[in-house]
Amino acid sequence: MSKETKIANAVIRRLPRYLRTLEEMEAEGLERTSSAELSERIGFTASQIRQDLNHFGCFGQQGYGYAITDLKTEINRILGLKNKYKLIVIGCGRLGEAIANYTKTFEPQFDIVAMFDTSHDKIGSVVCGLPVLDDKWIEEYVKKNGVDIGVITAPAEFAQDIADRLKRGGVKGIWNFAVTDIKGMEGVKVENIHLSDSLRALTYYIAND
Amino acid sequence: MSKETKIANAVIRRLPRYLRTLEEMEAEGLERTSSAELSERIGFTASQIRQDLNHFGCFGQQGYGYAITDLKTEINRILGLKNKYKLIVIGCGRLGEAIANYTKTFEPQFDIVAMFDTSHDKIGSVVCGLPVLDDKWIEEYVKKNGVDIGVITAPAEFAQDIADRLKRGGVKGIWNFAVTDIKGMEGVKVENIHLSDSLRALTYYIAND
Repeated sequence: MSKETKIANAVIRRLPRYLRTLEEMEAEGLERTSSAELSERIGFTASQIRQDLNHFGCFGQQGYGYAITDLKTEINRILGLKNKYKLIVIGCGRLGEAIANYTKTFEPQFDIVAMFDTSHDKIGSVVCGLPVLDDKWIEEYVKKNGVDIGVITAPAEFAQDIADRLKRGGVKGIWNFAVTDIKGMEGVKVENIHLSDSLRALTYYIAND
Repeated sequence: MSKETKIANAVIRRLPRYLRTLEEMEAEGLERTSSAELSERIGFTASQIRQDLNHFGCFGQQGYGYAITDLKTEINRILGLKNKYKLIVIGCGRLGEAIANYTKTFEPQFDIVAMFDTSHDKIGSVVCGLPVLDDKWIEEYVKKNGVDIGVITAPAEFAQDIADRLKRGGVKGIWNFAVTDIKGMEGVKVENIHLSDSLRALTYYIAND
């Protein structure tokens, strides 16, 4: 484990946001930026931004700021986005299809290699240009093909079993869209997108406004 | 603004997770629980859980714990889930369809009433049992029908304009799936699902493990 893993979780969660902002600025043809300008766009304070970037040895120069491309390259490296990742999507419903399509379109370093489902109507077909394979082969497929990340878009009641098989196959990470908390994943990083929790936090703010 | 809005953001974000766990326990036929048991299932410490629930006047009794149904009802009330919400989905691609389908299936208190798109191939059709309307009528539709929440699943470059029109129409909240940060939404609560940021945080942990 490198020393960079000692960086606080909260800092890590902010890095993709910095990266996205820098990508937008680069697309606008900008070359340099400052913590004040980043603050304006992102909403964090300038001092927070300087502190976050200092963590990773990215120092802006007084009166000169940050070179956008260099900073972008550095954050890309820190986030591990210089590497390529092999993904499989488990659950070939509307959500699985949407996530496969999204990832193929917007995230070129993530290579989705197959989808899996239990339905015999779907197995053997091609969805988003990907073969739909039988769910029972997940573990074997992950082992043989060196899959890095399993994306779970299957219903909640199947998620734990799928995750266990992904782990035994040797994935390094799970991107979980099932509305349940997966347990026993030591050594595998689980990143959850809980749509339901997000919607229910939104109603809190609406109801209490 | 009620006094409940003074509760820290971090506490609010944990409530949907408590609710989900209580729903699972109720489905398993359980009637009572303790902070220790909740801690086991959720992963937060028991003392954290007691502290969070105390905020809202939910006190467990020593040696007796919490009545699951009562606690669930109370968290439902706090989160504003006793109310019904009218939603529209803007962007009728794979993601829009998946989110509409998800919400219709799993979240009965959220009533999706229409979808919107700019494509003349889609306008006038029915998707997930919902009419697809012309994007240019968003503001008027929101006003006339008292829409509470706009769900943006359109591409990032259109998101700000869509959000501006939703706000002028009078929505109370925006559930944003576009990979961009929406600005100028004073009085409207924006809840983001940034798929790209989530995937990029996952690779950090994989790359630095």
